[in-house]
Amino acid sequence: MRQELSGLTASRGSALGRARVRLPHVLAVVEERIAMEAVDAELERLHDAIDRIRREMRAMRERLQGALAHEIGEFLDLHALLLDDPDLLSGLDELIRSSHYSAGYALRLQRDRIAAVFETMDDDYFRSRMDDIDQVIGRVHAALHRRDTDAQGLAGEILVTDNIAPAELAQLQEQGVVAVVTSAGSALSHSAILARSLHLPLVVGVTNLLQTVADGDVLIVDGGTGKVVVEPNPADLRTHRSQLRGYARELRELNRLRREPNLSRDGTAIQLYANAESREDVAEAHALGATGIGLYRTEFLFLQRNELPDEEEQFHAYRDVVLGMSGRPVTIRTLDLGADKADRTGLALQDEPNPALGLRGIRLSLARPNLLENQLRALLRASGYGPLQILLPMVTRREELRQARHELARIARDLRSEGHEIADRIALGAMIEVPAAAISLSGFIGEADFLSIGTNDLIQYLLAADRNNDALGDLYTLLHPAVLRVLRDAIRLAKARRVPISICGEIAGDAAFAPLLLALGLEQFSLHPTTLLEVRRTIRHCDVPYLRSQAPALMRARDRGEIERWLEKQRGH
Amino acid sequence: MRQELSGLTASRGSALGRARVRLPHVLAVVEERIAMEAVDAELERLHDAIDRIRREMRAMRERLQGALAHEIGEFLDLHALLLDDPDLLSGLDELIRSSHYSAGYALRLQRDRIAAVFETMDDDYFRSRMDDIDQVIGRVHAALHRRDTDAQGLAGEILVTDNIAPAELAQLQEQGVVAVVTSAGSALSHSAILARSLHLPLVVGVTNLLQTVADGDVLIVDGGTGKVVVEPNPADLRTHRSQLRGYARELRELNRLRREPNLSRDGTAIQLYANAESREDVAEAHALGATGIGLYRTEFLFLQRNELPDEEEQFHAYRDVVLGMSGRPVTIRTLDLGADKADRTGLALQDEPNPALGLRGIRLSLARPNLLENQLRALLRASGYGPLQILLPMVTRREELRQARHELARIARDLRSEGHEIADRIALGAMIEVPAAAISLSGFIGEADFLSIGTNDLIQYLLAADRNNDALGDLYTLLHPAVLRVLRDAIRLAKARRVPISICGEIAGDAAFAPLLLALGLEQFSLHPTTLLEVRRTIRHCDVPYLRSQAPALMRARDRGEIERWLEKQRGH
Repeated sequence: MRQELSGLTASRGSALGRARVRLPHVLAVVEERIAMEAVDAELERLHDAIDRIRREMRAMRERLQGALAHEIGEFLDLHALLLDDPDLLSGLDELIRSSHYSAGYALRLQRDRIAAVFETMDDDYFRSRMDDIDQVIGRVHAALHRRDTDAQGLAGEILVTDNIAPAELAQLQEQGVVAVVTSAGSALSHSAILARSLHLPLVVGVTNLLQTVADGDVLIVDGGTGKVVVEPNPADLRTHRSQLRGYARELRELNRLRREPNLSRDGTAIQLYANAESREDVAEAHALGATGIGLYRTEFLFLQRNELPDEEEQFHAYRDVVLGMSGRPVTIRTLDLGADKADRTGLALQDEPNPALGLRGIRLSLARPNLLENQLRALLRASGYGPLQILLPMVTRREELRQARHELARIARDLRSEGHEIADRIALGAMIEVPAAAISLSGFIGEADFLSIGTNDLIQYLLAADRNNDALGDLYTLLHPAVLRVLRDAIRLAKARRVPISICGEIAGDAAFAPLLLALGLEQFSLHPTTLLEVRRTIRHCDVPYLRSQAPALMRARDRGEIERWLEKQRGH
Repeated sequence: MRQELSGLTASRGSALGRARVRLPHVLAVVEERIAMEAVDAELERLHDAIDRIRREMRAMRERLQGALAHEIGEFLDLHALLLDDPDLLSGLDELIRSSHYSAGYALRLQRDRIAAVFETMDDDYFRSRMDDIDQVIGRVHAALHRRDTDAQGLAGEILVTDNIAPAELAQLQEQGVVAVVTSAGSALSHSAILARSLHLPLVVGVTNLLQTVADGDVLIVDGGTGKVVVEPNPADLRTHRSQLRGYARELRELNRLRREPNLSRDGTAIQLYANAESREDVAEAHALGATGIGLYRTEFLFLQRNELPDEEEQFHAYRDVVLGMSGRPVTIRTLDLGADKADRTGLALQDEPNPALGLRGIRLSLARPNLLENQLRALLRASGYGPLQILLPMVTRREELRQARHELARIARDLRSEGHEIADRIALGAMIEVPAAAISLSGFIGEADFLSIGTNDLIQYLLAADRNNDALGDLYTLLHPAVLRVLRDAIRLAKARRVPISICGEIAGDAAFAPLLLALGLEQFSLHPTTLLEVRRTIRHCDVPYLRSQAPALMRARDRGEIERWLEKQRGH
């Protein structure tokens, strides 16, 4: 019987397929023994399963690109670590070999043993670690019971579940899943952002989903409207086909925009820079006609190893970026890491109860002069190969900017006297992401050659709301009057003082927010290449002078509802 | 030979005594065995030492009052937990009984065993836990080797060390230490704030301290000037005696201020409310002539137990506060807790990577309707006994305030229909501690009956600097242009709209900042009773119209140095 459900649109695109319902994971395995002569085969089966999971995780890690790669990578790294942990798996072989338990039951027993140890520890931290162990054991368990044909088992199917972790999404798409529908989740979650960058349709927050949809039901999912049709009728199929044609047309149109300039309907020139952190990002940014690289993140050079990259290694990496953009401007940000990621670098940092409010970004660089010196030397040397400017993260006070500039000048003198060719003048900019920096901008704007607003962190600090904390619901949002005011004031001041200013947070790459950012006066966006064409298209439909004339009405909004109504009113302008 | 060192003044007062030098703790114990017949005595000695540490920690916990009690209490709780941990101590008896090791060496062996286990775990968290275990074992070790007379061993002495933890300070004063001098540390640290409230002289950041001072040297420490004299000469002794007389006179003067009104030199009436969280605080506030209770914290009712206090228990507590102030106004804040403290309550909250940016304060209360309903019922019932107003912590957006007011009205109707006597109208106020609330205040000030600026959190979010993170040095500070601007704007707006506004963070109780706060337009301070007289005295010396005329110069300051120079210039105004 046809039924229609509706949820929130998290990632556009339309898909038709059978439902694969995944209920919340429960580890219920009964005792099972095997014959003595089957022991060796069982051990092999177990190790095969573990190896397969290892390979899958490695493959997923390599596939991950873009802004989310590091955050998702963290889960994967933790799980990989657990898979290699002798404490976790040493007992398994023994259980199979001496007690003749099946691999599945041995997994269960071993899991319970570890849980028993952890429970005595009486500590929230251990309890949350136990969740990770459960996830890893659950994966091995699933791999044990997966037939060879199962690898394609999900192809063409639509996953229906309670919630989805970002780390799973990439893997699911690789296995052929064509859409995902969840009963929980938010359109602004990491999973939603990742689904959009994977072009995987995702509808979240569907009421009665798990009660309504059964395994094998045929579904049509439209990520553009949030509609889910169960057992569609001929009319639904017709609609779906026309939607598919619509999306295909849209994609062709988008691709036609690759060589178009960034001009609004009224002819205002807007600059679209790309955020990048890999060679591929840079190549893509170049191909899409990005104005330049607005934010090159250097963290990847420091993560995933137990020693710090030396000057030479950094120099080569930065030079590649400069050369890769063949003369277009490149902004490289100095290291933006804190204690929450230090364990994956050569940096020995003390644990912090609130790493987001800790020793990170320029604070860490200034506290470790060698770290800063190496990076500045590498950056300055790369500046000999093309236009390069340096961006400092987490600037909080004027003194930091002055100190960094002082260091930069000293190092430039050193390099010149060593015979290196470096640019005559290197622009030094500040990320505006600490509220205090935004609020006191007039006191130090004269010290900065350019500014880049890091809305991801800025919003999080302004609202005292961790953007990765799901318990906060929709508290973390651009759509708060205080956020708009801070952005408007910073952009206004920078323009009055003729200091270039851009926004480089996720919101710059969300086409839905482009009219709002244009109304606030923004002229430089820095965004991930995958979102560039869509933002370009939206801007081409915008009337900038009209939007700016609507800014006073926007600034009068007192809450999210009033801001959303303003946004709704601007559609088509 | 006489020598003079100088450091930063962290807590005033002057002391004369012998130096007790404590070098950074190293656990170096050699192998030591005891005779078989001494085993029982050795076991008793060990258990005595452990019991003594337990008693000391309990006594310290009970002595702690005021704002820092909970934070310091956390360390103590953790250590107490470790002391009772069978994993930590089970092997000790065995080592003494079967191998005849001395208690000290057994402690060392057991410590190394635990360390070996922790090292395999390869996790920063475990490594930092090991520091706690080392501290606890170090304490037991010290207790083992402390002779009975040693309890008074520190009496009259001046502790000279590298750094001091807040938890140690109270204990040291109890043991008779008359002053503390450290080579590291900041004048704005928790230790400094605690030392001031204990009236224990403290000088920090003394260069060459440990190289210059030897155990047993006679020292004069002046916390007022930051001077440390080693082996003082007759002239130094004379100066010291006159300083002591000066401090005693000051104390007498302060006490004469107990019944004086809060008037500035020019006759401006300033209101000094008290922050409180215990019966003693309330009694003290009453005795000192506080205008009322400006902030009554309700967390203590929820901490230290595994179940939530019911309506009846809360009602009795709140009624006691109202009755204790006999008609003066009392502001009670609803629960202000987050995941970082949930393990000490009946609240099951998920761990958060950044609890300061998490589900806390009004966010938690709105997410747990029963929690809020119980507390509001108890508060409304207490309002029948005297003037009471309700303050909501962590307000971030207008919607929260509206929702809370809606709940309050509904509950008031319920209570009236149940026959309770409650006040006709209860004022509902918002803490301004989330930057977004301060910045968008004009959009929701009409929803608040009064405002209280929580500078402790506000500064931490504005500067993205955890106030408890020592690695950040002096980054966390009131003396940032952005903080001053946010305070000035909020106070100005509230006064224009005739909404009462106070500041209830630590800075309100720091007399050194009073001229600055008066310049910003503040008329209501809410501070801990121990600091009330000193702030009253400072205010009595201030010329408020003059200070306000200096506000524009203050607002032009671009960095900490410029703000400090402004403060310096106002001395005596």
